[in-house]
Amino acid sequence: MSGVIHGVGLGPGAQDLMSVRADRLIRTARHIAYFRKPGRHGHARRIVDGLISPDAIEFPMEYPVTTEIPVSDPRYNEMLSAFYADCTAHLHALAAAGEDVVVLCEGDPFFYGSFMHLHSRLAPLTPVRIVPGITGMSGAWTASGTPISWGDDVLTVLMATLPEEELSRRIHDTNALVVMKIGRNLPKLRRAVEAAGKQDCAWLVEYATMADQKITPLAQAQAVTGYFSILLVHGQGRRP
Amino acid sequence: MSGVIHGVGLGPGAQDLMSVRADRLIRTARHIAYFRKPGRHGHARRIVDGLISPDAIEFPMEYPVTTEIPVSDPRYNEMLSAFYADCTAHLHALAAAGEDVVVLCEGDPFFYGSFMHLHSRLAPLTPVRIVPGITGMSGAWTASGTPISWGDDVLTVLMATLPEEELSRRIHDTNALVVMKIGRNLPKLRRAVEAAGKQDCAWLVEYATMADQKITPLAQAQAVTGYFSILLVHGQGRRP
Repeated sequence: MSGVIHGVGLGPGAQDLMSVRADRLIRTARHIAYFRKPGRHGHARRIVDGLISPDAIEFPMEYPVTTEIPVSDPRYNEMLSAFYADCTAHLHALAAAGEDVVVLCEGDPFFYGSFMHLHSRLAPLTPVRIVPGITGMSGAWTASGTPISWGDDVLTVLMATLPEEELSRRIHDTNALVVMKIGRNLPKLRRAVEAAGKQDCAWLVEYATMADQKITPLAQAQAVTGYFSILLVHGQGRRP
Repeated sequence: MSGVIHGVGLGPGAQDLMSVRADRLIRTARHIAYFRKPGRHGHARRIVDGLISPDAIEFPMEYPVTTEIPVSDPRYNEMLSAFYADCTAHLHALAAAGEDVVVLCEGDPFFYGSFMHLHSRLAPLTPVRIVPGITGMSGAWTASGTPISWGDDVLTVLMATLPEEELSRRIHDTNALVVMKIGRNLPKLRRAVEAAGKQDCAWLVEYATMADQKITPLAQAQAVTGYFSILLVHGQGRRP
């Protein structure tokens, strides 16, 4: 009997915002795997501090590269492909030995998640089950205290890694907006938001639902933001 | 001391996909409010069957109109405004008497949610706290077994109530797509998806995460679908 690999969404960061199903799986897991940067505790791992069994066997999967090499460099793809293949081999071996494994996934596993790269490799080999999670963007608009979308509003989700002209065109052409992967792209994103005429209704939400949650008008945001930053423009659609 | 109105996200439908925070609030609530159609048990109420205290006082809020009158008819707005004002008065009175109230919200409260209409009225009067939830669309793409968005993919969320030409333009101009509020708009949506050339990669997901979950290629979908239908086109973005 093969074990099952569970890709488990942790939600936006607060421990009690993971689902009841995720909470149960994580508390009872014998094997727990998660991504992190080398030398770090890991954000996904931090969310489950105090929750996992002291007997659980942990498998930290350390990225060989994050932002040191541009995504466009062929070495980036090569290094990440080899890394995902190694992680897949380890998880597959555990499942083949009959062990279940919980893979911790920040936010929702199937929404721009790293686990997707393991899922596509593991799914042909072994049973994989997904537990959805509250997205980081839900955490952000909840933190903002204002609904993101009403009535017939169009919601667009963009990565700040896109070219400036495409960002500004799409920011102009939507009612509600979410932008992720901001970091070093903040100056470009700010110009795109201004070109779209939305600089006065754009908010930067950092560390939503966590202790250091922070909400800033885009105009006042600093030049570089943390990994967990999300930009919001709230929709203003139909409402009785 | 005023009580607190909690707008609590229930997630996509499976009871154990609500958050740990939502689960705790609902189990211990003395007052539970929820929207439903007249004469129905109510979908939100059904999700918490067996979870709420037998002593809890329930306040079903029954829509005076759902699809009997077109949204464009002025009577629609008038009837819903009066209804939301009544609900607000009742909840405000409870809070003023020091009672906490849990309002059950399908999906995520701030994402196209009915509770938003109470939130905007209650927030100036009394403390309101929001517990985010897993969206119905996360439930849908999890049910589809395929990630919705990768790398730099643009994700667009549309309501099928939009005009056909706008639907087809936006469906053409996105990588990943979610369409909600389908129901009677299915024939129009199907034409828009075909005009955008995406009929072969569009999936209709019904009752995601629930016992009667169903995934159908759009081409084979029947003429009218249930309220919980979501259309997906998965992004195909960058992946190492």
